[in-house]
Amino acid sequence: MPSPFTRRRSQSVSSLGEIRLITEIQRWLGNATPLAPAGIGDDCATLSGSPLHQLITVDPVIYGEHFDDSVPAKGVAAKLFHRNLSDIAAMGGRPRAALVALALSASVKTDWLREFYRSLATIARRHHVPIVGGDIASQPAGFNATMTVIGEAPESAVRTRQGAQPGDWIFVTGSLGGSRLGWHYKFAPRLNEGHWLASRAEVRSLMDVSDGLAKDIRALTPRSCRPCLRRSSIPISRSVQAAAKKSGRDPLEHALTDGEDYELLFTVNGSADPAALRTAWHNHFKLRLTCLGRFEKSSSLARFEDEIDLTAYHGFEHLR
Amino acid sequence: MPSPFTRRRSQSVSSLGEIRLITEIQRWLGNATPLAPAGIGDDCATLSGSPLHQLITVDPVIYGEHFDDSVPAKGVAAKLFHRNLSDIAAMGGRPRAALVALALSASVKTDWLREFYRSLATIARRHHVPIVGGDIASQPAGFNATMTVIGEAPESAVRTRQGAQPGDWIFVTGSLGGSRLGWHYKFAPRLNEGHWLASRAEVRSLMDVSDGLAKDIRALTPRSCRPCLRRSSIPISRSVQAAAKKSGRDPLEHALTDGEDYELLFTVNGSADPAALRTAWHNHFKLRLTCLGRFEKSSSLARFEDEIDLTAYHGFEHLR
Repeated sequence: MPSPFTRRRSQSVSSLGEIRLITEIQRWLGNATPLAPAGIGDDCATLSGSPLHQLITVDPVIYGEHFDDSVPAKGVAAKLFHRNLSDIAAMGGRPRAALVALALSASVKTDWLREFYRSLATIARRHHVPIVGGDIASQPAGFNATMTVIGEAPESAVRTRQGAQPGDWIFVTGSLGGSRLGWHYKFAPRLNEGHWLASRAEVRSLMDVSDGLAKDIRALTPRSCRPCLRRSSIPISRSVQAAAKKSGRDPLEHALTDGEDYELLFTVNGSADPAALRTAWHNHFKLRLTCLGRFEKSSSLARFEDEIDLTAYHGFEHLR
Repeated sequence: MPSPFTRRRSQSVSSLGEIRLITEIQRWLGNATPLAPAGIGDDCATLSGSPLHQLITVDPVIYGEHFDDSVPAKGVAAKLFHRNLSDIAAMGGRPRAALVALALSASVKTDWLREFYRSLATIARRHHVPIVGGDIASQPAGFNATMTVIGEAPESAVRTRQGAQPGDWIFVTGSLGGSRLGWHYKFAPRLNEGHWLASRAEVRSLMDVSDGLAKDIRALTPRSCRPCLRRSSIPISRSVQAAAKKSGRDPLEHALTDGEDYELLFTVNGSADPAALRTAWHNHFKLRLTCLGRFEKSSSLARFEDEIDLTAYHGFEHLR
């Protein structure tokens, strides 16, 4: 098992101490980190000024919560970096730089940490997102890595969760559900897709699906509206069959509530043609794109025959 | 004791759950957090574009490491916010915005967390640094709050740890040592001082003292130089006497190695007049300013009579 911890002091970060560990991290990151003051090693990281709106997101991976001994360091690094990049994608931005704040017990294995940082470096190079700074602190037990990513976008191209109107179409990229079988360590952040969507005037709001469609759609829903989603429209991921077999639950429930899909959920002006958007999309992307339904006024009580009763589904909620 | 934890579920954050907790946090922060998308509640926080250099720093407070049951939530919040602001001061910048990533066990007391956030809000208002976003995650045990602060400064006024030359004067603000007796929860970040210093052409490098002067001075020391500090020049803090009485160690050792002073350590062009700088300083600030000595070429082996042998002192190192 690739546990991050060891009882042998000689194999642990405590045998290095902080100063040598920082030198090692710089070596592991290689050209994925620029030299100070732009890189690791000063009081702050620095980025040049920019006329674009700056987007800032912060998300952790925590041992015992987001991963355990069964997950290799590479998967942990991928999850940490990609979930932050997914937040930048969910605003329509491009990532500029990342920082990593590490809180770790003295028993963390040096080998494990090396693989973790080398994996971060690979992702940093792939997406041209240098790791410009961070912090290392001791903690009594466990492992907690918190990443901050700075991105940017022209003001006109920033898409938030607000902006949907009654009658707007609801779309989602890719497919949903079953992410716990591995997807949440393997997904690719939808950066190009988010950037493209944010350039389209008919796209009015945008987010990524992290807690499950049933919960996340609420954040986009305009006041006095309900999302009318057609049961037959939900793009159910292939791994849902395996998840449903294991859990004994309905595949649709998995697709709506599993969370960690990291697909993009967005809304489109109700007077735009959904088919035209889909055609334009497929000129750029192979990824599936699905129109799930639209926002109806809550006053229209009649349900469509195929409409999902979302009150029956709950997405992931922390601290419960 | 103001422990952050409770065994009673009704008094803990788990009785709120994530969604209500976020609403409560927004209420506790009040006008210290703007509305989304600029504030909490979207995939990213947004800041407007700026021609200035952007400074980014990230630092945590961790239960069992930076505080324990004896420290009120207010002190924990002050330490978290101020150590990040101190990093911005240490580059000569002005803070723009902060984000807080919380990793907490379900047993965290709601009352404790309310005081923590209200204290953050007070500091945010005092320094005009809105809390624009963050994250909440569960963790198996404990409490870990990681703050990211974004600041800015004109490129010409950014001061890094690099830039000192042989012969440069070494200065420090305030006094040193004994911080563990309370200072590290109470200090004021030297934002105005750092900003003023960075506007002075003769100030060539700048940092804050977090791990103790004996360790931190190494980061400013030019290649082939050694810092020659006069023993009699070290500004020893009043609380050092009490600390030394408790520890039985030399007061000077406390001043050089205790760390968490959060004073500014900086270097001044060797051909500038230290007395002139001090006069200009005291036109703006009441805070003590001390010239500790200067950088000498390592080749000049002769020590001054009053010179401190820094190899005999070690500052704070994590993971040891």
